Amino acid sequence: MTTPGAADARAAYEKLQAEGMKLDLTRGKPSSEQLDLATPMLSLPGDDFRAADGTDTRNYGGLHGLPELRAIFAPFLQVPVEQLVAFGNSSLELMHDTLVHALLSPLPGAERRWADEERVVFLAPVPGYDRHFGVCERLGIELVPVPMTDDGPDMDVVEQLVAADATVKGIWCVPKYSNPTGAVYSDETVRRLASMPTAAPDFRIIWDNAYAVHHLTEHEAEIADVLALAAEAGHPDRPFVVGSTSKITLAGAGVAFLGASAENVDWWIRLTSKRTIGPDKTNHLRHVRFLRDADGLRAHMRRHREIIAPKFAVVDEILTREFADTPGIEWSKPAGGYFVTLTVPEGTATEIIRLAKEAGLALTPAGATHPYGEDPQDSIIRLAPTFPPLPEVRKAMEGVVVCVRLALSERG
Amino acid sequence: MTTPGAADARAAYEKLQAEGMKLDLTRGKPSSEQLDLATPMLSLPGDDFRAADGTDTRNYGGLHGLPELRAIFAPFLQVPVEQLVAFGNSSLELMHDTLVHALLSPLPGAERRWADEERVVFLAPVPGYDRHFGVCERLGIELVPVPMTDDGPDMDVVEQLVAADATVKGIWCVPKYSNPTGAVYSDETVRRLASMPTAAPDFRIIWDNAYAVHHLTEHEAEIADVLALAAEAGHPDRPFVVGSTSKITLAGAGVAFLGASAENVDWWIRLTSKRTIGPDKTNHLRHVRFLRDADGLRAHMRRHREIIAPKFAVVDEILTREFADTPGIEWSKPAGGYFVTLTVPEGTATEIIRLAKEAGLALTPAGATHPYGEDPQDSIIRLAPTFPPLPEVRKAMEGVVVCVRLALSERG
Repeated sequence: MTTPGAADARAAYEKLQAEGMKLDLTRGKPSSEQLDLATPMLSLPGDDFRAADGTDTRNYGGLHGLPELRAIFAPFLQVPVEQLVAFGNSSLELMHDTLVHALLSPLPGAERRWADEERVVFLAPVPGYDRHFGVCERLGIELVPVPMTDDGPDMDVVEQLVAADATVKGIWCVPKYSNPTGAVYSDETVRRLASMPTAAPDFRIIWDNAYAVHHLTEHEAEIADVLALAAEAGHPDRPFVVGSTSKITLAGAGVAFLGASAENVDWWIRLTSKRTIGPDKTNHLRHVRFLRDADGLRAHMRRHREIIAPKFAVVDEILTREFADTPGIEWSKPAGGYFVTLTVPEGTATEIIRLAKEAGLALTPAGATHPYGEDPQDSIIRLAPTFPPLPEVRKAMEGVVVCVRLALSERG
Repeated sequence: MTTPGAADARAAYEKLQAEGMKLDLTRGKPSSEQLDLATPMLSLPGDDFRAADGTDTRNYGGLHGLPELRAIFAPFLQVPVEQLVAFGNSSLELMHDTLVHALLSPLPGAERRWADEERVVFLAPVPGYDRHFGVCERLGIELVPVPMTDDGPDMDVVEQLVAADATVKGIWCVPKYSNPTGAVYSDETVRRLASMPTAAPDFRIIWDNAYAVHHLTEHEAEIADVLALAAEAGHPDRPFVVGSTSKITLAGAGVAFLGASAENVDWWIRLTSKRTIGPDKTNHLRHVRFLRDADGLRAHMRRHREIIAPKFAVVDEILTREFADTPGIEWSKPAGGYFVTLTVPEGTATEIIRLAKEAGLALTPAGATHPYGEDPQDSIIRLAPTFPPLPEVRKAMEGVVVCVRLALSERG
């Protein structure tokens, strides 16, 4: 198929605008159909509110969270159950609060609390997750971008930066089905992250395993065990592992998890004990009663896959049909997670997103995948196809095609 | 009744020890019977998961919390509904996080964030709530005690301290059925707090209205509207009002509220938006379906009263029987809330609590009602009678009597 001329592109766009579309591919939200899978939870746990050990889940207490829920998720998050905390409804909260704790109280191994450092830097693999960057921006932690590869962050760059500069205190990682590229960290990347020498004695990896069980294909990706590798390398306190059921059960009413070395977890619990008497254990129990065990969780995730894999297939189908041979246009073909990264010719992402918006199609703002909202190539567009029904995903992607074509034709 | 001699007191204590009692009056926890009142919630909301405005409560979003839940609680917390946020399961979290936000980002009206102040001081009315003090101790905020009266904090002392010193940035208040004395702030106290000149432009009142609807008698105490009075006095941003349903519905699975001026709420939401995508709206809806409206809430609280008022009556009955005429022994007769404050002769509280512990009766540690755990008179004991069943409260209080008598007789 040949690229149509500028006039054709303009005409197609005007037709698109005339349709008065109102669609949204911005956020990684589950669809109603996905949420329906877990809606039986909203009648649980009923009268049977005692935990396996007899604890009355209705009352105060239990800062580590319900042991039987932690036991279900421990193997999937690769954290020993006694080092895994089950908490509130948001893993973003757990990451944010962990950095707040580090700012206000010295981490295990730290010389001082981060608020008393002149400068605190986190490495941000790009393209990456805008909410990670938002936490740092809000807390005054400086972000330094490092390039992503198909195997995770470019480790040559990472190793150099962390070895040279003690102000580099951490790195953001989404190790499986990365947001937004879908990359799965190779075992070698994980090993290097876990074992690399760092100038900072209190360097931390925020290991956001958000898509641990969120497979889109029969092949279920596995990643290396960062906690075990870090311990083997003599850096047991380096990783903080997080995850949640937000995209497993109910997005607003899930349970988030935090795992780390025993010393990190003790530190975290000690500080958190000043903040709350404990998480909502009835919601933990609700999850246990609904998911039951590891097999229940796996079966549940297959049902999600049946709903969302066709949406990702449509995205790929339409992009392939239209742009397979277009120079400068590439896209990820994720085997899991919630996003497709569309790479467009340099300097056109902002314009494509603007055109889409004016045609009633909301896309994630240009630059959102980069610290401070600045994509220096202006070429990355994050597509999130899970929320709209399948026909709308198709319609939205046909709209994306029209906007890309117009932007490219007008660029001349 | 005459005080028995030292030998009798010792004999009674040894008998108590021999009973091998294992009772606990330490924390303000609801009993199982109270939690049973709200257990039907654990089957809600079922399939009917849409909010009044059609919002799918299962999905992400809605940082301010469910409007219909906020509407039920707004009048009780004396906050306009549009300025009231419904959030997670803990008001302690909301207070802690508000101070964290103030440390890391300038409050409305502040010259700088508190982390950049040389010294930040909060006033702590004593006796007070140990978890309030714990938040400040953990965050490096200095606590200065001020005496409580039956009408609230001694306002002459408060006014002098806040006017003289710009490092005094806040005060902790439990204005209704105060923890632990049961005092209800007089209208005059509230007016003075709301209108007093403060050296700090960013002075805040943490108005922990934890027992807003937790009455123990027919007479339902009302307090003046601190937000309205502060606004009238030209200090609209001064109060942060908090409350929760922890002692209304389920202690571990309730909903906490934060109310303040529109500007404070915007500030709080803006910072919180970097931390989470939103609270658990299904739990908000669960509360709406269960409590229904203001009348439902009032009726529910009367059922709590029927369960716990007899426990407070037993505490008063036994203390009156034993110590009505004992010099140096006094106790509060709260009309609401969760605590009785027992004042014993100077220098005996620690010994009484030690004796109780060795007889298998856990009491709140001596000094817990004071900053840094230091009660300079060593005379305040906080009793929390709600959790044990009524016969155990009686048994525990008979044990308290034995320990008090022994401590007093040994003091000579």
